[in-house]
Amino acid sequence: MFKAIVSADTLRAALDSVGVLVEECKIHLTDDGIQISAVDPANVGMVDLTLESSAFESYETDGGVIGVDLSRLDDIAGMADAGQLIELDLDEETRKLQIRIDGLEYTLALIDPDSIRQEPDIPDLDLPAEVVVEGRDVDRAVKAADMVSDHIALGVNTDEETFYVEAEGDTDDVHLTLDREDLIDLSAGDAHSLFSLDYLSDMNRAVPLDAEVVIELGEEFPIKIHFEIAEGQGDVTFMLAPRIQSD
Amino acid sequence: MFKAIVSADTLRAALDSVGVLVEECKIHLTDDGIQISAVDPANVGMVDLTLESSAFESYETDGGVIGVDLSRLDDIAGMADAGQLIELDLDEETRKLQIRIDGLEYTLALIDPDSIRQEPDIPDLDLPAEVVVEGRDVDRAVKAADMVSDHIALGVNTDEETFYVEAEGDTDDVHLTLDREDLIDLSAGDAHSLFSLDYLSDMNRAVPLDAEVVIELGEEFPIKIHFEIAEGQGDVTFMLAPRIQSD
Amino acid sequence: MFKAIVSADTLRAALDSVGVLVEECKIHLTDDGIQISAVDPANVGMVDLTLESSAFESYETDGGVIGVDLSRLDDIAGMADAGQLIELDLDEETRKLQIRIDGLEYTLALIDPDSIRQEPDIPDLDLPAEVVVEGRDVDRAVKAADMVSDHIALGVNTDEETFYVEAEGDTDDVHLTLDREDLIDLSAGDAHSLFSLDYLSDMNRAVPLDAEVVIELGEEFPIKIHFEIAEGQGDVTFMLAPRIQSD
Repeated sequence: MFKAIVSADTLRAALDSVGVLVEECKIHLTDDGIQISAVDPANVGMVDLTLESSAFESYETDGGVIGVDLSRLDDIAGMADAGQLIELDLDEETRKLQIRIDGLEYTLALIDPDSIRQEPDIPDLDLPAEVVVEGRDVDRAVKAADMVSDHIALGVNTDEETFYVEAEGDTDDVHLTLDREDLIDLSAGDAHSLFSLDYLSDMNRAVPLDAEVVIELGEEFPIKIHFEIAEGQGDVTFMLAPRIQSD
Repeated sequence: MFKAIVSADTLRAALDSVGVLVEECKIHLTDDGIQISAVDPANVGMVDLTLESSAFESYETDGGVIGVDLSRLDDIAGMADAGQLIELDLDEETRKLQIRIDGLEYTLALIDPDSIRQEPDIPDLDLPAEVVVEGRDVDRAVKAADMVSDHIALGVNTDEETFYVEAEGDTDDVHLTLDREDLIDLSAGDAHSLFSLDYLSDMNRAVPLDAEVVIELGEEFPIKIHFEIAEGQGDVTFMLAPRIQSD
Repeated sequence: MFKAIVSADTLRAALDSVGVLVEECKIHLTDDGIQISAVDPANVGMVDLTLESSAFESYETDGGVIGVDLSRLDDIAGMADAGQLIELDLDEETRKLQIRIDGLEYTLALIDPDSIRQEPDIPDLDLPAEVVVEGRDVDRAVKAADMVSDHIALGVNTDEETFYVEAEGDTDDVHLTLDREDLIDLSAGDAHSLFSLDYLSDMNRAVPLDAEVVIELGEEFPIKIHFEIAEGQGDVTFMLAPRIQSD
């Protein structure tokens, strides 16, 4: 059993964070809320999302797992205005999800969860550096880097206590250095890793410009990017494997 | 002789309603205003438009018929701002239409009316059911249906006194049910017919969101969709033939 | 040495006026400001731009010439918000331009000025007619003409003291006549020349709608189009060679 009512913008923010990585996913329904983990086909990027039951206007479930086509569910959520409410109601027998938006009823066929790529075990890394930065700074850095290269380095300079972003293209380079003044917080530690901009650009699309983004990183280690959605009642964590340094 | 001045938004609303079905049309010029009837090449959708002389700032004609390329005339009207006035002046000798927008003069070559597809005789059907619904509800239903299928059923449930819209796709379905509360008016009668979404989506583009839309329908019968434009001084009627029920 | 700070919208307005004609250009750095001249590969359209040092928030140079890829520099300038400041700093050794926007640093590789098409000698023509017209009237005329033809005639009627624009297509025509009332100024003189709309449409994109545009023209002679940018601290002059009259 699953019956819930949620505002369109909350549902869309949640779906978008997973949809930038995968087409289909399993949604775990628990007393506490919904939870989604997914990894892209190349095993490079992972996402973990929780949306607490308190993020919903109403929420009832006796547990279970459903498989959904994210782009389809996102299209349906896109039919609603930002503040409009979306009712979700699982029909256990037909394995379809009834979605109601102000009198309009959409019946979405679910996907067999067993046919969906296995969920990743997001490793519990103890990364040496952590910075907290505004979403709009992540956005500027990723977009500028994308103009010159297909990869991007992120690192922390422990001496200068700065977080830096570098992209080196064939002719042009991009650098962004943020010091303690520019950052919301910084726990310095040796960190420098190279990442694919394809992935980071996709993940960036899910980061709200006004979010406080917690970035954990290390020396040629995966990066963790964490931020809240739904006024703190939803959590998104991305993890991205590093590229091997070419030089 | 034909000389008229009309606001850009009125002219565009009128042209759009015909332009969703055909590329070229005949415009009948009468003392009462202009009148256009047209049918698409497949003979499935028809439109009848009248724009009263009172919808114009000034209007003079001694009658006649002109043939126009609608997309070209729409492009020209699109050069004007919404409230700006457009002057139309027929040059009988050259068979060209002079179009003036604030000093800019466009000379549009007319099309020989005899070369344009014959106008339809829109049948005077006596359909058993009639509902009056807001344009934005038509829009929601048509767009949602278009996400799952290429056809759409419209009908009236006489017991429950509801108007319904259904689209059944290969996996997903869409339903919209509007009762007396949701509708502006309802004259219940047995009605259920299937239509092509290609046509209905095109027609929907011409329906203002805030219009009162009168829909007449029956059992496997054509549908009539009627609404006003130009603050009541223009009338648009679409008629759409039903698809044969596949099951 | 070249170090300057300029608002994003001023830099973009300057770059756009040159970028509509060429991909790469030489920028002359002088005490008075920057100066660019360029001609398109077909030698039909020319542009001359000066942006005074007073248009910059700060400006220092000991002179020189740099070669830049305009679309790349425009993309970078596009990363800034309209009022945001852009810092430019030439690294003489590496021949790269450091561009800073609020902590973000972009290193743009310059182009060897010798590899860029030679700058034109913009001829000092003494054209018989001059009209001063609003940018939005240029825009309307060029866009309307573009709907019917690929060339456009501009001229002055000395008897009626009007400036006119004509485009004759295969079926439709466009005319715009502006008299002393509609014009900001007119120095009448015999003038009628035909131009390619490809070029004039491109040039039009660089003309602000609210600019006072000075147009100098003659009988089958090139046209000069002049307007100010950056609140009068920048000057743009386009020159366009006439097409040969086909009839």
